[in-house]
Amino acid sequence: MNKSALIAQIKQKKSFLCIGLDVDLAKIPTHLLEKKDPVFEFNKQIIDATHHLAVAYKPNIAFYEAYGIKGWKALKKTINYINKNHPEIFTIADAKRGDIGNTSTMYAKAFFEDLNFDSVTVAPYMGRDSVEPFLAFKNKITILLALTSNKGGLDFQGLKTKTGEVYKEVLKTALTWKNAQNLMFVAGATKPEYFSEIRKIVPNHFLLVPGVGAQGGNLQEVCKYGLTKDCGLLINSSRSIIYAGDDANFAKAAQKEAFKLQQEMKVILDENN
Amino acid sequence: MNKSALIAQIKQKKSFLCIGLDVDLAKIPTHLLEKKDPVFEFNKQIIDATHHLAVAYKPNIAFYEAYGIKGWKALKKTINYINKNHPEIFTIADAKRGDIGNTSTMYAKAFFEDLNFDSVTVAPYMGRDSVEPFLAFKNKITILLALTSNKGGLDFQGLKTKTGEVYKEVLKTALTWKNAQNLMFVAGATKPEYFSEIRKIVPNHFLLVPGVGAQGGNLQEVCKYGLTKDCGLLINSSRSIIYAGDDANFAKAAQKEAFKLQQEMKVILDENN
Repeated sequence: MNKSALIAQIKQKKSFLCIGLDVDLAKIPTHLLEKKDPVFEFNKQIIDATHHLAVAYKPNIAFYEAYGIKGWKALKKTINYINKNHPEIFTIADAKRGDIGNTSTMYAKAFFEDLNFDSVTVAPYMGRDSVEPFLAFKNKITILLALTSNKGGLDFQGLKTKTGEVYKEVLKTALTWKNAQNLMFVAGATKPEYFSEIRKIVPNHFLLVPGVGAQGGNLQEVCKYGLTKDCGLLINSSRSIIYAGDDANFAKAAQKEAFKLQQEMKVILDENN
Repeated sequence: MNKSALIAQIKQKKSFLCIGLDVDLAKIPTHLLEKKDPVFEFNKQIIDATHHLAVAYKPNIAFYEAYGIKGWKALKKTINYINKNHPEIFTIADAKRGDIGNTSTMYAKAFFEDLNFDSVTVAPYMGRDSVEPFLAFKNKITILLALTSNKGGLDFQGLKTKTGEVYKEVLKTALTWKNAQNLMFVAGATKPEYFSEIRKIVPNHFLLVPGVGAQGGNLQEVCKYGLTKDCGLLINSSRSIIYAGDDANFAKAAQKEAFKLQQEMKVILDENN
């Protein structure tokens, strides 16, 4: 999927919501545990109930890997289900990968070819030749970590350099890489005051914003500084949507939470035009 | 496995060689492609031929993920084979993971529990709370990226801060984290001049050194600056060992290359005592 298709979807659904599929067997409704593949069954019901309200789904790969081969199978079924039934949806493998050149190519193959995700999150620590192998894939998006929303996010991202902080150097440097037009960036929502700084460096790139909801980020604040004319934001919410309910009606409860956020987004998008 | 068992193994085998299992179906001897699980068959023969010369094996997880569920199965068979037949070997999941707290715990479970590796490589970009969940596992080692051996390694790791470069800040800061005694660090061999800098900050921690062999690093140079009284180094070689041969005798050819390195290491260890 290319960016213009994503933008068209945002306009049509009046939403820039991304739903994080961080599926933990200890947290899903217990009646699902009797199913053959509880993780996929959970995802399927969440997707069926929310696909008209969200423009993207973001499986958190760790939660699948933790269940080994079973988890990998559930991941594959989930992405296949989305691609087959909701091909308009933008899919994000939240994998935070990154390694030397030939190894990054292998990770890119895993997520772009074997699993057929539209995008993957990548960590910048190893520099240019660890990221460009992802960028080399046509019609695929590489979402580079810039500023993350966790407590320790500033430990190294916030270190002062001669010309700014490390996360700014990452943004500036990444723009010089081959196929930089295939980049989006992760920018954490728990620090909305940073969004104006980020927009000075990347005025038009899409930002994937985790941390709204369970992590405490505020949607209005993020949009105030982060919104572009094409929207330019994907706001992720995971736990506050998918674990909104814990019984047989969990998908309805998730839908209700997603609808609340989508309605807020509709107002923001209408005001933006 | 704890560090004293690793040190005992190094003394007994007179080796600090780690063999990287970066198995690419396009590079392994073609006769193996007829086997049911070519990747595992390749690994098994390499392990059988080299386990007396190496103290550690390091599957590069990307190469398994790229083959999807099949790849994950080959990885599991490989680690089980090592753990069952060569329990003295130190095993490293070269995964370069790292994410917010609860997600890092899931990655840690994947590699420490589901797969039962002794250690995993972790990227530091997201800071303290992305690494401490790995360090919380008893009798497991977290190998943190400090200075990597690839071309772009210095793009961000080499950025100057007030008190040094980013990679030095990573080393210094990581020492303050909970269970820092469970840390090792990745330090690239293509930059031996940096090893004396690194040893000023972490005089005793083990360093995992990739980049000897195919990537051009020099063993003598690394040891000159990096060796400690307990050795303190694991030197990884991947392609120059495992792809030394390309026919039915590939394992013998790998053994020959591993033996050459082990003999060099024996001399260095004897001189060090």
